[in-house]
Amino acid sequence: MNNTLRAAALSALLLSTAATSGPADQVAWDITADLTTEIGSRPAGSAQEAKARQWATARLAALGFKNIRIEPFTVTGFVRGAETAMLTAPYPHKLHITALGYSAPTPAGGLSAELVYFPTLDALKAAPQGSLTGKIAFIDHAMTRTQDGSAYGPFGQARRQGPGIAASKGAAGVVIRSIGTDMHRNPHTGATSWPEGTAAIPAGAVSLPDAELIARVARSGKPMAINLVLEGKAQPNMPSGNVIAELPGSDPALPPILIACHLDSWDLATGAFDDAAGCGIITAAALRANEGGQLRRTIRVLWAGSEEIGVFGGAAYAKAHAGEPHGAAMESDFGADRIWRVQFNLAEANKPLRDRIAAALAPLGVAAGGDKASGGADVGAIIAAQKLGVIDLEQDGTRYFDFHHTPDDTLDKIDPAQLQQNVMVWAIVLRILGMETGAISGS
Amino acid sequence: MNNTLRAAALSALLLSTAATSGPADQVAWDITADLTTEIGSRPAGSAQEAKARQWATARLAALGFKNIRIEPFTVTGFVRGAETAMLTAPYPHKLHITALGYSAPTPAGGLSAELVYFPTLDALKAAPQGSLTGKIAFIDHAMTRTQDGSAYGPFGQARRQGPGIAASKGAAGVVIRSIGTDMHRNPHTGATSWPEGTAAIPAGAVSLPDAELIARVARSGKPMAINLVLEGKAQPNMPSGNVIAELPGSDPALPPILIACHLDSWDLATGAFDDAAGCGIITAAALRANEGGQLRRTIRVLWAGSEEIGVFGGAAYAKAHAGEPHGAAMESDFGADRIWRVQFNLAEANKPLRDRIAAALAPLGVAAGGDKASGGADVGAIIAAQKLGVIDLEQDGTRYFDFHHTPDDTLDKIDPAQLQQNVMVWAIVLRILGMETGAISGS
Repeated sequence: MNNTLRAAALSALLLSTAATSGPADQVAWDITADLTTEIGSRPAGSAQEAKARQWATARLAALGFKNIRIEPFTVTGFVRGAETAMLTAPYPHKLHITALGYSAPTPAGGLSAELVYFPTLDALKAAPQGSLTGKIAFIDHAMTRTQDGSAYGPFGQARRQGPGIAASKGAAGVVIRSIGTDMHRNPHTGATSWPEGTAAIPAGAVSLPDAELIARVARSGKPMAINLVLEGKAQPNMPSGNVIAELPGSDPALPPILIACHLDSWDLATGAFDDAAGCGIITAAALRANEGGQLRRTIRVLWAGSEEIGVFGGAAYAKAHAGEPHGAAMESDFGADRIWRVQFNLAEANKPLRDRIAAALAPLGVAAGGDKASGGADVGAIIAAQKLGVIDLEQDGTRYFDFHHTPDDTLDKIDPAQLQQNVMVWAIVLRILGMETGAISGS
Repeated sequence: MNNTLRAAALSALLLSTAATSGPADQVAWDITADLTTEIGSRPAGSAQEAKARQWATARLAALGFKNIRIEPFTVTGFVRGAETAMLTAPYPHKLHITALGYSAPTPAGGLSAELVYFPTLDALKAAPQGSLTGKIAFIDHAMTRTQDGSAYGPFGQARRQGPGIAASKGAAGVVIRSIGTDMHRNPHTGATSWPEGTAAIPAGAVSLPDAELIARVARSGKPMAINLVLEGKAQPNMPSGNVIAELPGSDPALPPILIACHLDSWDLATGAFDDAAGCGIITAAALRANEGGQLRRTIRVLWAGSEEIGVFGGAAYAKAHAGEPHGAAMESDFGADRIWRVQFNLAEANKPLRDRIAAALAPLGVAAGGDKASGGADVGAIIAAQKLGVIDLEQDGTRYFDFHHTPDDTLDKIDPAQLQQNVMVWAIVLRILGMETGAISGS
């Protein structure tokens, strides 16, 4: 058979196996359901995250993985406290708010101040220096729903950069419209950061209906005031760690394929979409890829710690494993909806490999895109350090930012059929990668 | 013209007026938007409800209504306090909970006890007397989504009766799966009641994702424990009142048409769907019905107070106006989605009137149903006392119980096009009723 035919036959084999429901089929669901039920939320550096690491090693061992270990590191985490917000003028309204990661705590009794409306991050940037002294900035924006999640980059800056910009202009606090696409009273948390030399200020995100209310009131032209209580704060030297496990390949001379998810979650929910499902997908797919006979290459699974507050696990992995060769790296961290596109970053010499994978996925309706694969947060550092080959299996993110970093990221959001489609697509790719004997690298 | 043709011509007239956007078209939206923005939540008996009454009289006067007055009464309200819930065994999970109206407050430090799972209200009913002593009952159920809201009756009993049944069996507290059809971390509140001789216990509702989690844990067979903090409590002698206004008809001898909504809302949101929109719809429709020339009958608008905690406004209205004749009664209190069906309760002698209304609505796709119209909560008492004629304009309730009594009942849930369809249908019916010179009564 030529490569295309071989790939198509492989797809057919894996799909027919799926129809007969082998033992791997339940694995992704069970990891997602059990991790979210038996552990629940597992914020970076917390005791819950530590319990999750123990849970993970036991589960991976039960599934037959080898060389299971925890690689510890410490992080500066964010410990949430009481959080409330009340619009006090011109009309009293209780707002649904949550602190952003690395917000400073409000003083006793909360922070009461004038609320100044900015329709966009650019409008905030244009505010004169010092014009916000003693005030609280509100940053609105118009994030749109996209299938590929591409709106998160530009609009997410309202959360990542906005608070620092407000602080640098003298603001006493900052509130943003949640970075999200739903219309529920669920605020979206997420980490922010502070420019060098700028002290942290209290920073929170209100739900989108609350942001719409603030925008309506702002349009009335009446002065607005708010009381913020955000008692969470950063905490240094918290214990975290990566969980690593392997399915050993038959040829130890071939560098392993690294596949990653993250084990930590935000504290507001059980982190089903973000990212228990990712751990379920990659783990189930590794097992399934191995079902057709032992792979030549080792598949190394990385369940990274402390991704949400700054990709600490990915950095720790890259540092600890800098001296080891890797074959390629992939990550699943965008929910559990269907894979619709594949992107590559492979060397010119790997074009036949790329074509085999593209041909294997085409019958599943997964199209090969022309962009350069980036890999994702937790494999980013090792990819950059070693110029690794990368394959992105892009998930449908249409509803991802409805739940992202909110109390709503719970098991009921997982569609078992789409979850399983992820496992199948990943398994096909891992089978091809795992049997590849030639060198694999990025472009 | 015969009656059918006259009705069809009237529909065409009103619809064409809608297309040219007369001043009434904005009325329903403006009432809904301004009441929810300038007042916000307005729980029964609260200072916010009192502010809403003042707001209402000013708005109704500005719209040209006459005989505007507030008819005060007092109620036993429910004042919410701190509320949290933590599943403490076998796995720690923070739950999203809200107290039910008339819940008893938990003791200092909260109430910690074993949590006993009941899949249905019937399962709770079957529990032996005394078997719940010192424990907290959890009542699950499987409320379904229906267009006509008919599932609210039977499944709503888990909230209305369930806590009282649990208390009568010795339970120290009770938690229910929210009566709702969404899958968000928004608990649904609502009033419960206690049987004669049974003392109130702490009673709350968790969001549906939390209920699913509890059900999953219950299936594991591991004993469950919970800590409840529900500090809200009943408060007697709170001031409430009805707002009444009229568009006087040309013939004072003809009894008025009574149309109702309720002004109060639950405290968790701004009460856009429930029931600011209803007040917007009936008020805009009355104005529009009058635009074709003064009606013969007076249209009396009732914005009732304290509906949510026991239909106090409807009872007060029936008592205060027992001696006055009424022509017919109608109510809008089921959101703001499109009207799809009309039901009647009219005397045999009113069959021509019924047929005219049915014929006028048929071109709009509003079908005449064969059930007996009931009128709704706030007009229920006066209808029963006087055997009034009733017309129900039934709204599409498919998504009503996604938002009902949750923090999510906010302005963004209102679809302006469907809101306006309500106004048009109501206006057609009010025009026909308002010009009717014959006696109108129920069957």
